[in-house]
Amino acid sequence: MWLDLSTGVNPWPWPIPRDLPGAAWQRLPSRADEEALIAAAREAYAVPAGAEIVAAAGTQSLIQWLPQLASAGAVAIVEPTYNEHALAWRIAGHEVIARADLDDLPQAARHAVVVNPNNPNGRVMSRAMLARVAAQLQGRGGWLMVDEAFADIEPDISVAELCVDLPVVVLRSFGKFYGLAGLRLGFAIASPDIARRIALALGPWACSGPALVIGAAALRDREWAGRTRLAIQQQARKVDAVLENAGFRIAGGTGLFRLARRADAGKVHASLATQHIWCRCFEWADDLLRFGLPPDDRALERFAVALASAGA
Amino acid sequence: MWLDLSTGVNPWPWPIPRDLPGAAWQRLPSRADEEALIAAAREAYAVPAGAEIVAAAGTQSLIQWLPQLASAGAVAIVEPTYNEHALAWRIAGHEVIARADLDDLPQAARHAVVVNPNNPNGRVMSRAMLARVAAQLQGRGGWLMVDEAFADIEPDISVAELCVDLPVVVLRSFGKFYGLAGLRLGFAIASPDIARRIALALGPWACSGPALVIGAAALRDREWAGRTRLAIQQQARKVDAVLENAGFRIAGGTGLFRLARRADAGKVHASLATQHIWCRCFEWADDLLRFGLPPDDRALERFAVALASAGA
Repeated sequence: MWLDLSTGVNPWPWPIPRDLPGAAWQRLPSRADEEALIAAAREAYAVPAGAEIVAAAGTQSLIQWLPQLASAGAVAIVEPTYNEHALAWRIAGHEVIARADLDDLPQAARHAVVVNPNNPNGRVMSRAMLARVAAQLQGRGGWLMVDEAFADIEPDISVAELCVDLPVVVLRSFGKFYGLAGLRLGFAIASPDIARRIALALGPWACSGPALVIGAAALRDREWAGRTRLAIQQQARKVDAVLENAGFRIAGGTGLFRLARRADAGKVHASLATQHIWCRCFEWADDLLRFGLPPDDRALERFAVALASAGA
Repeated sequence: MWLDLSTGVNPWPWPIPRDLPGAAWQRLPSRADEEALIAAAREAYAVPAGAEIVAAAGTQSLIQWLPQLASAGAVAIVEPTYNEHALAWRIAGHEVIARADLDDLPQAARHAVVVNPNNPNGRVMSRAMLARVAAQLQGRGGWLMVDEAFADIEPDISVAELCVDLPVVVLRSFGKFYGLAGLRLGFAIASPDIARRIALALGPWACSGPALVIGAAALRDREWAGRTRLAIQQQARKVDAVLENAGFRIAGGTGLFRLARRADAGKVHASLATQHIWCRCFEWADDLLRFGLPPDDRALERFAVALASAGA
């Protein structure tokens, strides 16, 4: 049986009720269902008055649409990061300018994309810096996309408040923190004008009935969220200890995945695979691996044993 | 309790298994899950070799994308029909030319949209005529969109075979016939080149895990489909009898909804609403109403009684 440590999805999902109402599957999602989800999301994601939040069938569908809706012009993307941003901007015909940082926002860039905290290195850009970049892009008629797919563990990172006065689009992923990636639910937070354009592009009934019902209930469950945040942080520390014990140096990450460095990372990746443990390696670095959270102590122990054998 | 006859959704849904695998909710949909759905859909919708089928989170999401992917130019839409087509083409910046027919395809039109069978009047355009129109549009570098949302009752109507040699995009809606509109699942059938562009636009993980699992199982259930086709046709005939008994003349429709004419339709609509029965009326005709299928004989009887009282 494979132990899949290649994702950043919480291994302890929010518990879906056994008997979802049949109507959630059978009828077209109603305005009332959508409004209940949006109300829960506004509160969970601390969307300020003066900004709007739009629900979609997964953040990925928003990543696909944003480059179509943004004005023509080049986009600066802070890399290395989640590949799909650059891909979607290129498909839509924008020039993509890769940057290691946004300190030196290129003159040619009209838009910018930052994953914050970043995947895979976990780097967090300050709100002040993102506000400065957004103001620059505003002067160029552009947008700043801030993908907060992994912000749930440290919600204070969120820059949702910037959306009120600046052309910032914040993306929030539901599936990762709530452990329900298959549900396909994600959100865009933006000014009313940008949010309206996103909603028009997505069209009606963008989210499934189950996503509306489950999303609303889960986002209202603040007790679960608090408890889960702690459990994720604890498990991440245990993973760090296992990795350091195996000669890795922790190079970053978020609570939901750890980035770790060892000179022979490629060899470790291959050895773990032969032991049916799957983790993430990178084309752009041969000494880094990314590990998601094992779901329990037994899996953690199996991981530790496999790493010891990989090092032999 | 409201009796909702305003939709064209089958009131007898394909039975969802009680215990979906947890993985369908929890992990990102896998390539294997997607391939299983596509294989089932190819067979259910009789997609010819030489054409491809792409799955999306509801046909609506395809209706939103197609005008973005189509080349610039006006679109002819056979109206009256489902409103969302014209809306999506306008949002994407195309001129919309409304036409009662495609016999006189306007010179200015580069693309065309036909709902076949049409909603709400049920009119079916012949395959020969659609092939002729598609060939004309091919000469103009355009596409013909054929929305077969209600073709499941009479599958022979489908023009999927045209997709091999002509720039035809056939849309198939899963939720209506299978009675699972909340699941959000729909398909586009097209040539490999057009299908690839649609798939690139949708991006990865467009469908939820439950949609992949349920869709694949339901589309393979040919016995259910055959039985349900008959049940829908029988119920449609019963609805016709009730309507004719109440002084309506049947003006068209498909198995999943009936379009009926009576001079005082507006009055009937209002009276039914006071009796908590909801049906569809139209801005463009004050003597037409559209009725979906009551789910059982009791609801049918309630409908008949309400109509009698509306006529008084």
